Amino acid sequence: MPAESEEQALIARIRQRLPAGPRWVRLGIGDDAAVVEVVRNALEVLTTDTMVEGIHWDPRFCPPADVGYKSLAVNLSDLAAMGAAPRAALLSLSLPSSWVGATLPPFVDGFGAAAREHEVAVIEGNITSSPGPAVISVTATGNVRPRRVLTRSGARAGDALYVTGSVGTALAGLMWLRDHPSVEEPGDPELAECVRRYRRPVPRIRIGTLFGRNRAASACMDLSDGLSDAVRQVARSSGTGARILGEQLPVIGAARAVFEGRGKDPFRAATEGGDDYELLLAVPPRKKRAAEALQRLSRGVSLTLIGELTKDPRTVLVRGGHEEELPQGFSHF
Amino acid sequence: MPAESEEQALIARIRQRLPAGPRWVRLGIGDDAAVVEVVRNALEVLTTDTMVEGIHWDPRFCPPADVGYKSLAVNLSDLAAMGAAPRAALLSLSLPSSWVGATLPPFVDGFGAAAREHEVAVIEGNITSSPGPAVISVTATGNVRPRRVLTRSGARAGDALYVTGSVGTALAGLMWLRDHPSVEEPGDPELAECVRRYRRPVPRIRIGTLFGRNRAASACMDLSDGLSDAVRQVARSSGTGARILGEQLPVIGAARAVFEGRGKDPFRAATEGGDDYELLLAVPPRKKRAAEALQRLSRGVSLTLIGELTKDPRTVLVRGGHEEELPQGFSHF
Repeated sequence: MPAESEEQALIARIRQRLPAGPRWVRLGIGDDAAVVEVVRNALEVLTTDTMVEGIHWDPRFCPPADVGYKSLAVNLSDLAAMGAAPRAALLSLSLPSSWVGATLPPFVDGFGAAAREHEVAVIEGNITSSPGPAVISVTATGNVRPRRVLTRSGARAGDALYVTGSVGTALAGLMWLRDHPSVEEPGDPELAECVRRYRRPVPRIRIGTLFGRNRAASACMDLSDGLSDAVRQVARSSGTGARILGEQLPVIGAARAVFEGRGKDPFRAATEGGDDYELLLAVPPRKKRAAEALQRLSRGVSLTLIGELTKDPRTVLVRGGHEEELPQGFSHF
Repeated sequence: MPAESEEQALIARIRQRLPAGPRWVRLGIGDDAAVVEVVRNALEVLTTDTMVEGIHWDPRFCPPADVGYKSLAVNLSDLAAMGAAPRAALLSLSLPSSWVGATLPPFVDGFGAAAREHEVAVIEGNITSSPGPAVISVTATGNVRPRRVLTRSGARAGDALYVTGSVGTALAGLMWLRDHPSVEEPGDPELAECVRRYRRPVPRIRIGTLFGRNRAASACMDLSDGLSDAVRQVARSSGTGARILGEQLPVIGAARAVFEGRGKDPFRAATEGGDDYELLLAVPPRKKRAAEALQRLSRGVSLTLIGELTKDPRTVLVRGGHEEELPQGFSHF
């Protein structure tokens, strides 16, 4: 798990070598998704994400239907983090020949289930054979009205930080699955929830679009690479530091038990764990009441105050009155 | 090289399992690209394509900069085949760690060169590590005015078939490279052109958009999988057959020599060879003069009459007065 800066340095180097975008590109590489003005006053949000078998999922405990569902859901989560309503998806598959028989149909069913559930049209596809592991690339597009886009960079020191749902849940599910590799769900309902969250993340589309439409957030990002990573990125993009209150973090009991059973500090583990696909929202002080009102419209998705952005440029985790450096996020390089 | 129908049957099975698109999806899976109405009277065209190292290119004779250029160019070719002007691109990379040092920078430079040359904004990117071969997935978007979209299905029996540039050129380049694996270009200028066409295909954007804007074509498709495949698909989609005049096919001398030197019939080889990224255009009789006039605006890209669509549902190649079945196209499964 090398430092997050390696992946970001790589992306920065790539970006430098590419031509600068024209004026209609409102937001290019570097946020959850890109924003373009397709015609005057109509913004389109586009994002792309790839999953590699053996890296992003283990076929011993991730059934193909769940992989299909997740490959679309993670892209919808990026749209939600921009406040955009999803619209269309394009699916590119590079598959070993072993996939084509029994694995592909349930995979497509899972992908289709996510498309139906979130009202996304699957408009284009592409399939090639590969001698390597299955690689799934999905591009998703969505719409948002101008001035309602949520970016990583709009926040200020003093803005409160909220997180949707719970954190560390997916990591706990993954840890449990690694020790009990099976496509079955565990019997314990809270543990089953951890496993489900890992296999079929729920993109927070409703809450993302609600916060965008009501301009109740100054910045937003999804937790694809964990809470620590998201906090650091929002803070860096907004030119602030951050202070996260460890004891406030919404970690469910089963996740805490999984972490503790493996000798891990549950709050640190919860901030490091990726794959939660919750949203981190920065809320200016004068919008706090509005933000809490929006929670009532969010159909049971909780919203927890977990800290704030600070003038102090450090990103710290406060535990029992002591400050420590926020853990490094997860990175693929 | 199994029959084309296997890949298409696979795509048809995938399509069946997915939800039907809403009304704003003007054209979904099955053409060169998808067409959506983003706002009233503004169409967006989206396409996605993947290249796998070892399948779509051989690193022994395809330099990384050319792979970068081509990975974008093949998507722009799909847009050109719809009559759309390219606009933006999203790049997803799954890379073995060996790529990150010396291979990635020239790859990105080549991708950027194609983006600059064709005025495409690279708006989003994504990079993950993979234990397998490098997999490059590109999504490109473009714009086209309603009623100016070129599809595969609009043609009728009696429409003339034209092809841009030359056919079999890229296959000849590939065959030569396989026998002389090197990143150098051959000394002979016509042979060098074959190699260049294979490594850096030129998307026919200008001619595609000209035919779209002037409504001079009833159907259009690019030759990514070869002329035979394109003719069969346009004929099938339009409910016609086709008759291709073998001796009319624009096969350049160096390509013919490469095919003949390997004991291959040059005209059959030219219809089977993929990777040309020329356009096949169907032109109604009353538009033939307009089509030929457009050629003068196409900056040196030739347009050759190669046959016609027929009521007879067969797809035939006519050679020295004899008819034979048009060869099967190329397929990845």
